[in-house]
Amino acid sequence: MSLQSLPMLFLARVYVTLKPGVNDPPGLAVLGGLKNLGYASVRRVRLGKYLEVYLDAPDRATAEAQVTEMCRRLLANTVIEDFRFDLSEEPRLTKPQADP
Amino acid sequence: MSLQSLPMLFLARVYVTLKPGVNDPPGLAVLGGLKNLGYASVRRVRLGKYLEVYLDAPDRATAEAQVTEMCRRLLANTVIEDFRFDLSEEPRLTKPQADP
Repeated sequence: MSLQSLPMLFLARVYVTLKPGVNDPPGLAVLGGLKNLGYASVRRVRLGKYLEVYLDAPDRATAEAQVTEMCRRLLANTVIEDFRFDLSEEPRLTKPQADP
Repeated sequence: MSLQSLPMLFLARVYVTLKPGVNDPPGLAVLGGLKNLGYASVRRVRLGKYLEVYLDAPDRATAEAQVTEMCRRLLANTVIEDFRFDLSEEPRLTKPQADP
C-alpha cells in the first residue's frame, strides 16, 4: 500500500456553545463561584463544550462535511446550541499535542 | 465620570482540556456514539470544556493575570487538566456575539 492511498488524519477542534438567550445554570454556578472567591469584576460566564475529534478522510472537504454532520447528529443539540470547528491536518502516528 | 475612568470589558475564551494520558470516559462514550452512527473513520475523541468569561479590568495585563488565577483556582483542575485562553476587548453595553 503506497503512502498516497492512505487517508489523511484530521483533527477537528469543535466548540459547542449555548445559543444566546438560552439559560445556562452551570455558567451561573461558575459565576457565583468566582464571585465567592473574590472576583467581583466578573460580569458573565457562559459554559460550553470543547471536543477534539481525530478522523481519517481522503481530503479536507470530506472531513469538513463529516464533522458538520457529526455535530448536527450527535455533538451539538442544535435546538439550543451552536457549533463551530477548525480543521487541521495532523501528522500520522504521532501523539496529539497537549497544547496545540 | 469620564469614559477614561471606566474599566474595559474583556472576553476571555477559556479552553480546558485533559492532560495527555488522563482517562476520558466521556470522550470514549462520544467516540462509541459516533461509531454507532456509522462514522467508522473517527479515531479518537477527547472532551474538554469551553468557557466564555466576561470581566472588567483596567488593562489587558490585569485581565490576563486575573483569568490565569481564576483558571488555577476554579476553572481547571490543574492536576489532570491544562488550560489556555484568548483575551479580546469587547465593546461596552452590547450583547456578546453568538458566533464570534
